[in-house]
Amino acid sequence: MGNTFGKRLQLHTWGESHGSRIGGILEGMPAGITLDLEKIQAFCDRRKPGQSELSTPRKESDILHISSGVFEGKTTGMPISFHFENTNTKSEDYDKFKNVFRPGHADQTYHQKYGNRDHRGGGRSSARETANWVAAGAIASHLLPEVKAVAFVEQIGAVKVDVDLKSVHKDLVEQSIVRCPDSAGTMKMVKSIESARLEGDSLGGVIGCVVRNVPASLGDPVFDKLHARLGFAMLAINAVKGFEYGAGFSAAAMKGSAHNDLFDEHGMLVENRSGGVIGGISNGHEIHFRVAFKPVASISKTQKMANAEGTGVSAQVKGRHDPCVVPRAVPIVEAMTYLVLADLWL
Amino acid sequence: MGNTFGKRLQLHTWGESHGSRIGGILEGMPAGITLDLEKIQAFCDRRKPGQSELSTPRKESDILHISSGVFEGKTTGMPISFHFENTNTKSEDYDKFKNVFRPGHADQTYHQKYGNRDHRGGGRSSARETANWVAAGAIASHLLPEVKAVAFVEQIGAVKVDVDLKSVHKDLVEQSIVRCPDSAGTMKMVKSIESARLEGDSLGGVIGCVVRNVPASLGDPVFDKLHARLGFAMLAINAVKGFEYGAGFSAAAMKGSAHNDLFDEHGMLVENRSGGVIGGISNGHEIHFRVAFKPVASISKTQKMANAEGTGVSAQVKGRHDPCVVPRAVPIVEAMTYLVLADLWL
Amino acid sequence: MGNTFGKRLQLHTWGESHGSRIGGILEGMPAGITLDLEKIQAFCDRRKPGQSELSTPRKESDILHISSGVFEGKTTGMPISFHFENTNTKSEDYDKFKNVFRPGHADQTYHQKYGNRDHRGGGRSSARETANWVAAGAIASHLLPEVKAVAFVEQIGAVKVDVDLKSVHKDLVEQSIVRCPDSAGTMKMVKSIESARLEGDSLGGVIGCVVRNVPASLGDPVFDKLHARLGFAMLAINAVKGFEYGAGFSAAAMKGSAHNDLFDEHGMLVENRSGGVIGGISNGHEIHFRVAFKPVASISKTQKMANAEGTGVSAQVKGRHDPCVVPRAVPIVEAMTYLVLADLWL
Amino acid sequence: MGNTFGKRLQLHTWGESHGSRIGGILEGMPAGITLDLEKIQAFCDRRKPGQSELSTPRKESDILHISSGVFEGKTTGMPISFHFENTNTKSEDYDKFKNVFRPGHADQTYHQKYGNRDHRGGGRSSARETANWVAAGAIASHLLPEVKAVAFVEQIGAVKVDVDLKSVHKDLVEQSIVRCPDSAGTMKMVKSIESARLEGDSLGGVIGCVVRNVPASLGDPVFDKLHARLGFAMLAINAVKGFEYGAGFSAAAMKGSAHNDLFDEHGMLVENRSGGVIGGISNGHEIHFRVAFKPVASISKTQKMANAEGTGVSAQVKGRHDPCVVPRAVPIVEAMTYLVLADLWL
Repeated sequence: MGNTFGKRLQLHTWGESHGSRIGGILEGMPAGITLDLEKIQAFCDRRKPGQSELSTPRKESDILHISSGVFEGKTTGMPISFHFENTNTKSEDYDKFKNVFRPGHADQTYHQKYGNRDHRGGGRSSARETANWVAAGAIASHLLPEVKAVAFVEQIGAVKVDVDLKSVHKDLVEQSIVRCPDSAGTMKMVKSIESARLEGDSLGGVIGCVVRNVPASLGDPVFDKLHARLGFAMLAINAVKGFEYGAGFSAAAMKGSAHNDLFDEHGMLVENRSGGVIGGISNGHEIHFRVAFKPVASISKTQKMANAEGTGVSAQVKGRHDPCVVPRAVPIVEAMTYLVLADLWL
Repeated sequence: MGNTFGKRLQLHTWGESHGSRIGGILEGMPAGITLDLEKIQAFCDRRKPGQSELSTPRKESDILHISSGVFEGKTTGMPISFHFENTNTKSEDYDKFKNVFRPGHADQTYHQKYGNRDHRGGGRSSARETANWVAAGAIASHLLPEVKAVAFVEQIGAVKVDVDLKSVHKDLVEQSIVRCPDSAGTMKMVKSIESARLEGDSLGGVIGCVVRNVPASLGDPVFDKLHARLGFAMLAINAVKGFEYGAGFSAAAMKGSAHNDLFDEHGMLVENRSGGVIGGISNGHEIHFRVAFKPVASISKTQKMANAEGTGVSAQVKGRHDPCVVPRAVPIVEAMTYLVLADLWL
Repeated sequence: MGNTFGKRLQLHTWGESHGSRIGGILEGMPAGITLDLEKIQAFCDRRKPGQSELSTPRKESDILHISSGVFEGKTTGMPISFHFENTNTKSEDYDKFKNVFRPGHADQTYHQKYGNRDHRGGGRSSARETANWVAAGAIASHLLPEVKAVAFVEQIGAVKVDVDLKSVHKDLVEQSIVRCPDSAGTMKMVKSIESARLEGDSLGGVIGCVVRNVPASLGDPVFDKLHARLGFAMLAINAVKGFEYGAGFSAAAMKGSAHNDLFDEHGMLVENRSGGVIGGISNGHEIHFRVAFKPVASISKTQKMANAEGTGVSAQVKGRHDPCVVPRAVPIVEAMTYLVLADLWL
Repeated sequence: MGNTFGKRLQLHTWGESHGSRIGGILEGMPAGITLDLEKIQAFCDRRKPGQSELSTPRKESDILHISSGVFEGKTTGMPISFHFENTNTKSEDYDKFKNVFRPGHADQTYHQKYGNRDHRGGGRSSARETANWVAAGAIASHLLPEVKAVAFVEQIGAVKVDVDLKSVHKDLVEQSIVRCPDSAGTMKMVKSIESARLEGDSLGGVIGCVVRNVPASLGDPVFDKLHARLGFAMLAINAVKGFEYGAGFSAAAMKGSAHNDLFDEHGMLVENRSGGVIGGISNGHEIHFRVAFKPVASISKTQKMANAEGTGVSAQVKGRHDPCVVPRAVPIVEAMTYLVLADLWL
């Protein structure tokens, strides 16, 4: 089903961007795991809108409510049901788009497919859905407490930085308002975002992720390769256009003798060009992958849109949007990583 | 399960590279579809080893045998069981690697995971498995006969060509021994491959794919986004390191106003930067994506390997391998595309 | 997953008997179906506790809350999330059973399996869970509005009645306080229940169900036979011990010539001994099946119980229980029937 | 999918009764289990046609061929593909039924559903499919070698015997040509079958099954109750009309105080009326269930049939059929039991 993620640890989600609430069920968590609810809430807070002056003015308190599956602070082995209230939905912002398809949005494809559309902000297509994913990933991370996924912004628009995979860590990332572990890069990125906002435009970017202390043997040799599952998870995040792991697209220009990870005299890998996954199975080394985000489609510039009757119209989208969502996507990338690894581990 | 692909059209596969046969079941094909068995065999032939002087000398006739689900030339709605005989397995080539883990191969991860390993050529990790995928994709393509997936090589090692997505077609691709629709590029690629073979080395590359006549409304707005399903399928192909669609990684540097696909006065898209998928759902325009392949791990140069006891050894891999598998992966990319689209269409 | 029912129409449920709420997600309902919310609530009311003087004094208002997937009275094609508040949970009734396993209950098996147990009334094992099933079945019934499942009580304890399958209808059933479409039988059943209550004992029974206007071609010829799916659904209902359809166990003593449903001169079936399903596929005739319920395990007589330390104890269970749940199970049987048929129809 | 059974241990089957072969894939068996291939073949032989003078004269050698997933006598953790050749298909017997629907068979429902039908003997509806189930169950039984499922015939037509569940064992069952562990009963059953054959008629029956050494904690408390999974499996067997476990239908007439299994002073169960499953979870005691079979539909008496044009015809079915399939269904019941238990155990 299109609203379920995972096989042994399954996340089922529901809720529309402008309905009363959104939520999900996380099914498959074993019994007896102590959940750190503060840590889970803090994970959710990293994604929520309005957390800095750079992001959308839509504010949601995004308090996570858990209704089942946890008893006296521990998982019971039963489904964990959770939800967030939607407190700050200004549906009237969207009324004028009731019959207009915005460029770059799912408006037209959604309308074609379902014959109806909740014009109040994208329905299930809205990135608000990812609040559920972060909550579930935060819970799932308790299953493999030693595993640490550290995602970070390495590009926003034209600004790119080199990140040292060995030294990057979460504190360094969180110090930066754009979640870039490079202070000079951060300043340039902030400037780019401010300037895009002034123009009524938006910016894309690239998020890198390194995952440490991954157990060996996760993933399958045929279809359910670990990197294929990770790629599927990342490509499901709104606005993602590409995924690569290890040497990625640059591997295409390498020779086998340069790409193969050799062993040293103790049978240990000398390098980790493969990105921690060989033949679809984790080898116990760090996993490394990169995710490309397009600039968000919602911009306040006047654009040429279309309506259901097949007529072009010029219009402006007024809602409250981020000029750049990439920094807020960092916890989403981490959460989806935890969901994939926990699922394969079970 | 890790050996099943798809949801409503399911492919279950089995078989080891050096066992007696490999095969699969395609479940979910509706009743009453006439299968063009010659066309299906021809599709399989495009993948088979030994089809040109550039590829592995391992020859397999790769005749497809169908044992069920087809009666008097038509599908019956029942599972279609098929297999290929493994006729040319020189297992002795591999005997010396019984206890050695080859660099870049799944040997070590497989051994760790299952505590056993069919050292005779990779077991289920072998790309021989993809013969099953091509057979299934060729059958699945009969479900949506108007859809045409045209994959092509656009990079091998350092040689890159620009391919015009509007004009590229299958005949142009198949004329080229490396399946590159550019004759000057083909010559350079052939030279690169010859030179890698002489060095005992291998080359990676990039395959592009354009899919025409895709019905609108394929894919779901949440997890099962069409591009996420395509990405999962492509990342499952052996040696793949990256996937992008539409503007892909280059979208990260674009502004929203430049990336958004605007509508014209008739409500039609002016461009197709989104790659035919918006919000996870096909919009009826051409789908475009790119897949990065690493250079194959099997090279005949002496390399530093390891054995199960944790000792490094220098050794050569003698089997019969392609210096560059990318041209043979073209039909695999197409087959997986058909499987994904047929599954979502059902 | 053990908390998911169905394949194309999937019900995922959550919630413990004595938690704050219980609920579920119904995924797979097509877009554009108008839901009759009053009818759905009325369906739920038929199951709720405390509806007559014969049943448990635990009262729940059981108001159904729907949070997603319905917009302006119609399904949107997105997951329908719903829940019920648990308003009347007297957990203190159960405190003394914190370490005691009640006979006939899941206490011991649950404890063994999960290493924990919500002693406040059965956790997920409680029949309160079936409120979710009724809600989902009531919604699912809108998918096939012409199909009518009429379940009825035909046995309670030693009292059995013969029900004419051709004439039984819902009004007749609902007129009876025990949902038995036979007024003489109803009186005897009521007496039996009263007498069991006075003794502090409980009674089982049999529910029959006839389903009219079933489309032909539901069900598959191999594993997912329609009657196997119905049997699975019914056996999942708390306290069910047996399922049979058509001639059922009595078919074992018949000869083929007596059991086979012959055709008349117009190629129509003369009788319907097969119960509306042949070879696992509906034939368009009425489906008929029967479901056996054990007497509920909760009785107020003193019984020999055990505790986690492996010691026998004599004790009384005081909670608020029905002496006979069979009348309240009638809507559950109908709801599960709708879920199965709607799932197979999709 | 309708051709897949199980969740963590999945059986995918294929093949038509009168095609060249039938087979399946068993996916999910862990690596490293030694398979006793002789024992597996012997299990299959107990089901095969023509094993005694009482059954169909259609003879199949039913040699099991395994093509993957087993290396040097052990499972590899990869899918196990197997098949049987169909050597003795007299399709001409069926030619006259090309356009005729036989009473009690799936002919008409199959034709309605798929718009085509392999008239050569039932296609996927044929009980020949159960050869695959027995092979898979025999393999699965190696996963839980201590578990022993003993099925036996307790009724054929009007002849019923009482079987002592404590003492019945496999040798006693296999000594009887009808697999009834009661020698007087066996003689009566044989007579009944001979007499039905002479009349050109057929007989149904009941199979009981007791399963010993079942680990506790198999099954889930909500939908995937152990007995619901067993019921689903048994109801999928051709000709089955009913399933009950523990006290079954007779529980309906019992009082709670009589049905509840009490504990003794050591916290152990005194009796096992629940049939080894409480709240859907195995309690470690013997599982006991009963399965009702209708008389097979194929009889040689002249019967009133119908054709696709909606006309009644009187005709005789000549094929080679068993007057009573119940004895041959005994290993099928055991095999399905092993598949269910192994699946839940994983």
